[in-house]
Amino acid sequence: MSDVKAVIGSMARKARQAARKVAALSTGVKNEVLLSTARKLAASRTGLQEENRKDLEKGRAKGLSSAFLDRLELSEKVIDSMIQGLNEVAALPDPVGEVTKMWKRPNEMLVGRMRIPLGVIGMIYESRPNVTIDAAALCLKAGNAVILKGGSDAIHSNLALADILQQALEENQVPREAVQVVPTTDRGAVTELLARQEEVDLIIPRGGEGLIRFVVENSRIPVLKHYKGVCHCYVDRGCDEHMAIEICFNSKVQRPGVCNAMEGMLVHEDVASSFLPRMGERFREAGVEIRGCPLTCGLLPYAVPASEEDWGTEFLDLVIAVKVVSSMDEAMDYIDRYGSNHTEAIITMNYERARRFLNEVDASLVLANASTRFNDGGQLGLGAEIGISTSKLHAYGPMGLEELTTTKFIAFGDGQVRK
Amino acid sequence: MSDVKAVIGSMARKARQAARKVAALSTGVKNEVLLSTARKLAASRTGLQEENRKDLEKGRAKGLSSAFLDRLELSEKVIDSMIQGLNEVAALPDPVGEVTKMWKRPNEMLVGRMRIPLGVIGMIYESRPNVTIDAAALCLKAGNAVILKGGSDAIHSNLALADILQQALEENQVPREAVQVVPTTDRGAVTELLARQEEVDLIIPRGGEGLIRFVVENSRIPVLKHYKGVCHCYVDRGCDEHMAIEICFNSKVQRPGVCNAMEGMLVHEDVASSFLPRMGERFREAGVEIRGCPLTCGLLPYAVPASEEDWGTEFLDLVIAVKVVSSMDEAMDYIDRYGSNHTEAIITMNYERARRFLNEVDASLVLANASTRFNDGGQLGLGAEIGISTSKLHAYGPMGLEELTTTKFIAFGDGQVRK
Repeated sequence: MSDVKAVIGSMARKARQAARKVAALSTGVKNEVLLSTARKLAASRTGLQEENRKDLEKGRAKGLSSAFLDRLELSEKVIDSMIQGLNEVAALPDPVGEVTKMWKRPNEMLVGRMRIPLGVIGMIYESRPNVTIDAAALCLKAGNAVILKGGSDAIHSNLALADILQQALEENQVPREAVQVVPTTDRGAVTELLARQEEVDLIIPRGGEGLIRFVVENSRIPVLKHYKGVCHCYVDRGCDEHMAIEICFNSKVQRPGVCNAMEGMLVHEDVASSFLPRMGERFREAGVEIRGCPLTCGLLPYAVPASEEDWGTEFLDLVIAVKVVSSMDEAMDYIDRYGSNHTEAIITMNYERARRFLNEVDASLVLANASTRFNDGGQLGLGAEIGISTSKLHAYGPMGLEELTTTKFIAFGDGQVRK
Repeated sequence: MSDVKAVIGSMARKARQAARKVAALSTGVKNEVLLSTARKLAASRTGLQEENRKDLEKGRAKGLSSAFLDRLELSEKVIDSMIQGLNEVAALPDPVGEVTKMWKRPNEMLVGRMRIPLGVIGMIYESRPNVTIDAAALCLKAGNAVILKGGSDAIHSNLALADILQQALEENQVPREAVQVVPTTDRGAVTELLARQEEVDLIIPRGGEGLIRFVVENSRIPVLKHYKGVCHCYVDRGCDEHMAIEICFNSKVQRPGVCNAMEGMLVHEDVASSFLPRMGERFREAGVEIRGCPLTCGLLPYAVPASEEDWGTEFLDLVIAVKVVSSMDEAMDYIDRYGSNHTEAIITMNYERARRFLNEVDASLVLANASTRFNDGGQLGLGAEIGISTSKLHAYGPMGLEELTTTKFIAFGDGQVRK
């Protein structure tokens, strides 16, 4: 344990030192590190997959589920997507140094806000080794040093990826400590990392609710996280029912296992009798289990009665909770009570209610007439994302490069003093 | 203790409920609450000062210092400044609902970022009762509910001020729980407040380093704070020496007891022999004690040798640490080591070094050729400030109305689904 403390302490101090140098790197050098990493990945497929095989074999011997092993695997496709991700991040504009605003004071002093890196970011994640590359690329492009703590089951894969990243850093005269992978599977490493508030500026956990709660409970460092996505579509009485069916179907079925999939559908009573049977049929064809309120069950004989626990549950599966409501206010109260501030959509052609819903619903993304599945950095146009925040401080919603920076004030004077 | 738990728990839950209503208030209603509070303050001077007298008498009996009693007093001047503050905040633009950016996606969906309130803010502060009004005004204008925990020694004053605020809220049909003052002097109240992470979104402590460290160590809620201001001026070899003298004098002497006063001065060796004697004379006339490096002491016979502890000390007094450096890099290394990320200034006429200093120095405000005393929300043009943050997440520098908000994503679609 004291060994882990020493290892993490030394990594944190080195990251802090590296951070000042990374913050001052030119855009060109940062991009060259990313592109060189991409080339090296392409040239190291065999070696990478050998290291990955060690993790997979250990996982199989441990009896890990096939879904878990699937996430752990560095298949050709996963390697391709890491390479593509590196190229994409290299192509994004550099956020560092951007002056987001500038104004003149009455004393002629020019004051502005300049975007700067956060410093050192600690990333804590579970099985997918590709996060090692994706997260490192975004942190680095935003001028930060990063300490990566992946899942113990992916340790060989993560260290092999880190090795490639560090080669690319060194080739470009960037300190290799700009990107470090925690080399131990000791569980105390996470706790130690969360205690380094002098060196680490931000912790981003990615994984299941258990991991995230552990991080939040134990961190002395600010954490950006989301616990879960309990997303809803509210089908308003003034909607285009065909559009409502397509949006709700896409929100639920296109990829049910992710955080921006719809988990609950609220239907205005005026449209329930025409909309629900058509929608229910589409869901039934796709194998979606409907857990409904009494009115829903009255309209859909194949629906099962919802229990109290179904409201607000993140099913992450082909299951949906459906409730008929008598007004948009009832829908908004329901969302306030059972939602998770992630993604909420209204489907309506009514101008006033669309406007009220967009203004008043408190979620990281609120949509009118579009699928909840759009809550994603790429889909919203941020270029790439390192996660989605459902807490409000610093970032609310998908976090792209900008969210990995902050702004400082700068002032150009010519001798101004305060009276 | 369990009583305090119940009191704070109930306040937090009521604040949470009120927050949703406050978030939806129109600008007009929010301003009317502020202006009505200002009118009531003007009409309640006698009553307020009677309550304030109770605090002052208790404080005197307790043997509190005269400086402390001074901060505690609701003099006519302090009441005037609260009234003026309310009028000024009412006149500021409403940040809530502003769409800070909007863009079109290739699928024709319009995506934007809309400014929304943070929710419930907990403000923890020490002796000055005027913070009760100033903080409540800013939180409310930004659409937040606020829980105010002032110093025990100001309890009668704070409750009297809260009473006036709540009257103004009720007259305007706003829940009185939008602004609450913790009614107990029990020290457990702070700890309880810091544990209400389900209801409170942000904690802002204002006071001495001890209070702030206590809050940071004990909070499960994000905290925006600054520990101290160890600010420097670097007098470059290419400077206008007359300007340098005026800026350094203002930075040190204009108000030495505040966080944006200069505590350390770094002087390039090429200008030391001409600049330091003139500067030292000005400081000496103003009663500033100079603690210098050997070179400084060689030039200024009245300087005392600095000890290692003087570097990086926040004197908050007419004392300054002075060091001669051989390059700007040495000055920047010194600032990196001893500064507190608060305010750093360069005085130079050299274009390249001004640019490098502004880009590379990591502080919430970096100035070229102006006094450190400008690090203040009002002086920089933010209108008013609730504090200065020297941590980077969410806010870095003075926090005005914008920093009491966050942004959510909004999307206008017409049936878009994800492929």
